[in-house]
Amino acid sequence: MSEPHVVVLGGGFGGLSACRVLRNTGCRVTLLDRRNHHVFQPLLYQVATATLSPGDIAAPIRWVLRHARNVRVLLGEAARVNVEARRVELSDGDSVEYDYLIVATGASHTYFGHPGWEPNAPGLKTLEDALEIRRRVLLAFERAERETDPARRRELLTFALVGGGPTGVELAGTLAEIARQTLRDEFRSIDTSAARIVLVEAGPTILATFPEKLRNAAREALRRLRVEVRENTTVTDVDAHGVWLGSERLDAGTVIWAAGVAASPLVATLGAPLDRAGRVHVQPDLSIPGHPEVFVVGDAASFTQEGHPLPGVAQVAIQQAAHAARGILRRLKGDQPVTFVYRDLGNLAIIGRGSAIADLPRLEFSGPLAWLFWLFLHIFKLIGFRNRLVVMLQWALAYVTFQRSVRLITER
Amino acid sequence: MSEPHVVVLGGGFGGLSACRVLRNTGCRVTLLDRRNHHVFQPLLYQVATATLSPGDIAAPIRWVLRHARNVRVLLGEAARVNVEARRVELSDGDSVEYDYLIVATGASHTYFGHPGWEPNAPGLKTLEDALEIRRRVLLAFERAERETDPARRRELLTFALVGGGPTGVELAGTLAEIARQTLRDEFRSIDTSAARIVLVEAGPTILATFPEKLRNAAREALRRLRVEVRENTTVTDVDAHGVWLGSERLDAGTVIWAAGVAASPLVATLGAPLDRAGRVHVQPDLSIPGHPEVFVVGDAASFTQEGHPLPGVAQVAIQQAAHAARGILRRLKGDQPVTFVYRDLGNLAIIGRGSAIADLPRLEFSGPLAWLFWLFLHIFKLIGFRNRLVVMLQWALAYVTFQRSVRLITER
Repeated sequence: MSEPHVVVLGGGFGGLSACRVLRNTGCRVTLLDRRNHHVFQPLLYQVATATLSPGDIAAPIRWVLRHARNVRVLLGEAARVNVEARRVELSDGDSVEYDYLIVATGASHTYFGHPGWEPNAPGLKTLEDALEIRRRVLLAFERAERETDPARRRELLTFALVGGGPTGVELAGTLAEIARQTLRDEFRSIDTSAARIVLVEAGPTILATFPEKLRNAAREALRRLRVEVRENTTVTDVDAHGVWLGSERLDAGTVIWAAGVAASPLVATLGAPLDRAGRVHVQPDLSIPGHPEVFVVGDAASFTQEGHPLPGVAQVAIQQAAHAARGILRRLKGDQPVTFVYRDLGNLAIIGRGSAIADLPRLEFSGPLAWLFWLFLHIFKLIGFRNRLVVMLQWALAYVTFQRSVRLITER
Repeated sequence: MSEPHVVVLGGGFGGLSACRVLRNTGCRVTLLDRRNHHVFQPLLYQVATATLSPGDIAAPIRWVLRHARNVRVLLGEAARVNVEARRVELSDGDSVEYDYLIVATGASHTYFGHPGWEPNAPGLKTLEDALEIRRRVLLAFERAERETDPARRRELLTFALVGGGPTGVELAGTLAEIARQTLRDEFRSIDTSAARIVLVEAGPTILATFPEKLRNAAREALRRLRVEVRENTTVTDVDAHGVWLGSERLDAGTVIWAAGVAASPLVATLGAPLDRAGRVHVQPDLSIPGHPEVFVVGDAASFTQEGHPLPGVAQVAIQQAAHAARGILRRLKGDQPVTFVYRDLGNLAIIGRGSAIADLPRLEFSGPLAWLFWLFLHIFKLIGFRNRLVVMLQWALAYVTFQRSVRLITER
C-alpha cells in the first residue's frame, strides 16, 4: 500500500500545527492555502495601525515547512470538499484527492445579516484587510487637513470601532496614541490630538472573557487615552459617513468592524451540522459525523467543553490541529480515537504603550508588566528568527520615538 | 505684501531638496504629492525582489518636513498647470495658486509607442510597481510548482528583464540569487536553480554610462550568477507568454520593463518646449521660457551640460531643485538668475551579494569593496534614523541567511 495522503486546508496556526505533528512520519502531506504566507494574527492590528510592515508578521508557508520533506505546499483556493469522493475541489478547476483531511480554514468577519455594511466598515482578518484599514485611517487625517468645512472635518477625525473584544480594544488604544502623539506636529490645519475614538460594544462589557478586575483596568487605561467606551450599545446601521446606535447618530469618517466572526464558507460543503456562526459541530475526536477521516479544527469548528464553547483563539486551533494529526497517526496504527481536551494557557490583551492585561491560570495582572509579558510572548511565538529580531527592533524604536514607521498610503 | 507662496509639485528627491532650501525662509511653501510618502528609489528593486518591505524605503512626506513650519504638505494629484493664472489644478477639482512653482514630478516608464506592452511587462517606478513585480515573480514559482506540462513550466521559470541599465542589472542579479539560493529547498516538484534569467539590452552594452573596465566586471559577475546577457538585442513585441527579439522567440512567464523613461504628463500642460521623452527644455537657470517664476527640475527636465544631456539620477534632481529654490530666494532679493552647473559625484550599481561597481570622479573599482561602499552610502542616504537601522538589520540578515524576508503574495 502506498503512503496515506493527508491534505491540510489552511496555513494558519492550525494548519502549521498539524504539519508539525505529521512531519517526517509515514504520511504524504499536502498543505493547501490561497495565500503563500502564514500570518501571525495577534499582531495584525499593528499592521493596521502602521507600526509593523506586512512582512514583519508573515512568513512564506513553504519556507516554514522547508525541512518537512514529506510536506508539499500548494498555492490554491479550496472551493468545496466532496467527502464521498474524498476530494478537495479547487476554484481553478483542479482537484486534490485525500485519504485524510484536516480542515483548518479559520473564520472571517460577519455583519450579522448586513453584508452591505462591509464596504463602510472593513474587518481585520488578513494582511489585505490590515492594509486597507491603515489606508483609511491615514487618508482620514490627510483629508481632514485639506477640508475646510468644520462639520465634515470633525467627521473625518472621528473613528468608530465596533466590537469590544481584544481586537477592538487594541485598535482603539493604538489609534488614540497615533492621534495624540505620533501625528501631533505634522499637520498645519488640524489638531490631530482632538480626534474622537469611540469603541462600541453591544454586550454589557468590553473584554467579556476577562475577569472583572482586569476589565476595569482596561477601561481605566482607555479612559486615560481619551477613548470613549460605549457598552450596552448596538450598532443598528452603518453608512459611508458613520453609524447609527439605535436612535443616536455618530458621524465617523472611519468605521472598523471588530465584532462578529463566521466560519469560512468552505465548511458548509462538508455536509456536517453547523452552528449559527457556520462552524462545524465536531465529534469528541474532532472528526465529522460519518466521516472519521475528516477533521475540522480551530475557528472553523464548534466544540463545547464543560458546557462552554471554546473561544476562537490561536491556542485552540494549535491544540486541536495537533490532536487531529495525532488522531490520524493513531488510526493508521489501528488505535481508537481519543477525546480532545483543551488546556487553557491564559488570555492577554494589549491596550497601549506600556499597558496590557494578563489573565493566566493562576495569576491576573495589568499595567507595564503585563505589557512586557505580552510583548515578549508574542515576539517569542513569531515564526522565524529574522522576524523576531526585526519586530523587536521596530517595537523598541516605536516605544522610544512614539513613531509609527509604516505610515504608507498605497493604492489598491 | 504677504509672504510669497511657493508651490512644489512632487515629494521625491527633487521636491524634498527644494523644501530643505526654502525651510524657515520668508516664503510660504506648499508641497503637493499624490502619495503621502517619499520613496527612496535606489532601493526600490529590493522591494520588488522581496528583500525589503515598502515601509523600509519610504517615509511619510509630512514626517520628513515636520520641523519646516512654513511648509504645508497636501495629498493630491496635480492634473494641469495654468501658467497664465499661476494656478495648479488638481484632479479632484480643487486648485492651488502660486507665486512661484517648482515642478519636480519625475518620470514614469515608457514603452516606445507600445502602451499595450505594459500589462505584460510592468516597470519599476513606484512602491505599487515594486509590489506588483514581487507578486509576479513569486507567483511564477508557485505556478511552476503546480504545473505538469514541462514546456509551460519552463516558460514560468524564465524571467526576461528588458533594459540593461542599473535597474535591469540589479533585478537580474537579485532574481538569480533568489532562484539559485533562497528558494532552493522549498519546492518539491521544480528545481528553482534551473530558472533562466535573461537580461536584454537594445544598445551595444549594458550599463552604458559606466567605463568599460567596470562594464566587463559587471558582465563577469552576471555570468557567475548564470544570467544570460543579450546585448544589441531589441525587443520587438511583448505578450502574455514572453517576448519577441526580432525573429527570435523567448517564452517567459515574467517580463519586467527597465528600459525607457518619459517625463510625467503634467509637464506638457506648461506650454514649454519638450524633448522626445516629454521633458521640458529648461533655461540655464531651470525656469521655462517666458515664465521666470516656473522651474522644472530632475527627471521632468531636459538640461544639456558640455554637450551631454544630464542623466535621470537622484543627484541631478537634488542639485537642480536646490538651485531652483535658491533662484526663487535670489529673485525675491532682486538678484539676477544664475546658470545651473551639475557636479557629478559618481555612479554606482549593485549586481548581487558582495558584488557591485563604483565609478567615482577619481576612482573606479568593483567587487566586495564596491558593494560595501554602495551599501553604506545608500543606508546613510536613507531618510529617517529608524529606516537606516531596520534596513541595515534586514541586509545583514539577508546576507547571512540568504533569505529574502518579505516573500508575500498579496492581492491587488
